[in-house]
Amino acid sequence: MTGRISFVILTLVVLAGYRFVNSQKTSSPQSASSFNGFELVDKTGNIRKPADYRDHDQALGTWAVLDPTGNQLHVVYASPGAAEYYRKNGKFADGTVLVKEVYGTDHAQMTTGDAYRASAMIQWFVMIKDEKHRFPNSGLWGDGWGWALFKADAPDKQVATDFKKDCIPCHVPAQSTDWVYIQGYPVLKSK
Amino acid sequence: MTGRISFVILTLVVLAGYRFVNSQKTSSPQSASSFNGFELVDKTGNIRKPADYRDHDQALGTWAVLDPTGNQLHVVYASPGAAEYYRKNGKFADGTVLVKEVYGTDHAQMTTGDAYRASAMIQWFVMIKDEKHRFPNSGLWGDGWGWALFKADAPDKQVATDFKKDCIPCHVPAQSTDWVYIQGYPVLKSK
Repeated sequence: MTGRISFVILTLVVLAGYRFVNSQKTSSPQSASSFNGFELVDKTGNIRKPADYRDHDQALGTWAVLDPTGNQLHVVYASPGAAEYYRKNGKFADGTVLVKEVYGTDHAQMTTGDAYRASAMIQWFVMIKDEKHRFPNSGLWGDGWGWALFKADAPDKQVATDFKKDCIPCHVPAQSTDWVYIQGYPVLKSK
Repeated sequence: MTGRISFVILTLVVLAGYRFVNSQKTSSPQSASSFNGFELVDKTGNIRKPADYRDHDQALGTWAVLDPTGNQLHVVYASPGAAEYYRKNGKFADGTVLVKEVYGTDHAQMTTGDAYRASAMIQWFVMIKDEKHRFPNSGLWGDGWGWALFKADAPDKQVATDFKKDCIPCHVPAQSTDWVYIQGYPVLKSK
């Protein structure tokens, strides 16, 4: 009888062990469980900026925006595994987070030439893919995404109020590619 | 007796399960086991270009190099966890891999302004941190790093022959920061 009880208990422990193993596995960058953007969203649709994305997310690409009043670098990150999912499925996974950093630049003549690098952060744009139209009453959600803006003077304060005014206008030319300028992101086409 | 045997077998299975769990844990981006650059190196010091770094490595930063004959974007990646290690220790971990992609650019007037994005790949520079001076007889190893160059017309063929001629000259201004232009990589200072 003791043997049977041990058997049952140990079987449960083993199963629990394998469940844990599998949960570890599915948190790898390749799996759909990486697309956890809704962990950044409260019940009413308010969006937080992800922490540690520079350590953990993958880079999609960088834009150099030349402007006589100050050149900028726009560096775009996505949830781990986002590009692999996109290459397989032709779209971003529900829950994918995109972060676009907007930097001012410093400048120097370097051995490579006339080189601009990121200096002070100006602002962050955050988008979260939402296939299910989860927040029909929020001004931050629509057209398949959540939309958010954070400025460097208060980096944790989301300041967009109406995505149709604050966000979409700049994305209209990319409407046919789900509002994302995919031509700047080579990793969406190949590893 | 059967119960005891079951107990022993199941205990072994449980222990094996937890060992597997722990091996999963130590392969996370935060741990030193990410710094596996020497998997890319054969016994004589020949260096392969890492596969899938765009999906798995972390971005350090991007340089925009302006040139009348064609602007470039230089996008730099490092092994997962490299920046966290650097922030803690003030140096790159032994085995850290750096990849610098050199892209030509396409250009358009966009809603953000006069924007340049990566187009065709031109070449890749690869560096592997080597604290142990492992290959004193190789022309690709020295000054604390392995050095490699791959060009787009033969992306798997390492073409540097002497790092002192092919690589170091462009890095001399960064000698005091272990030959790396760390001022372009904000994530080495903060998350």
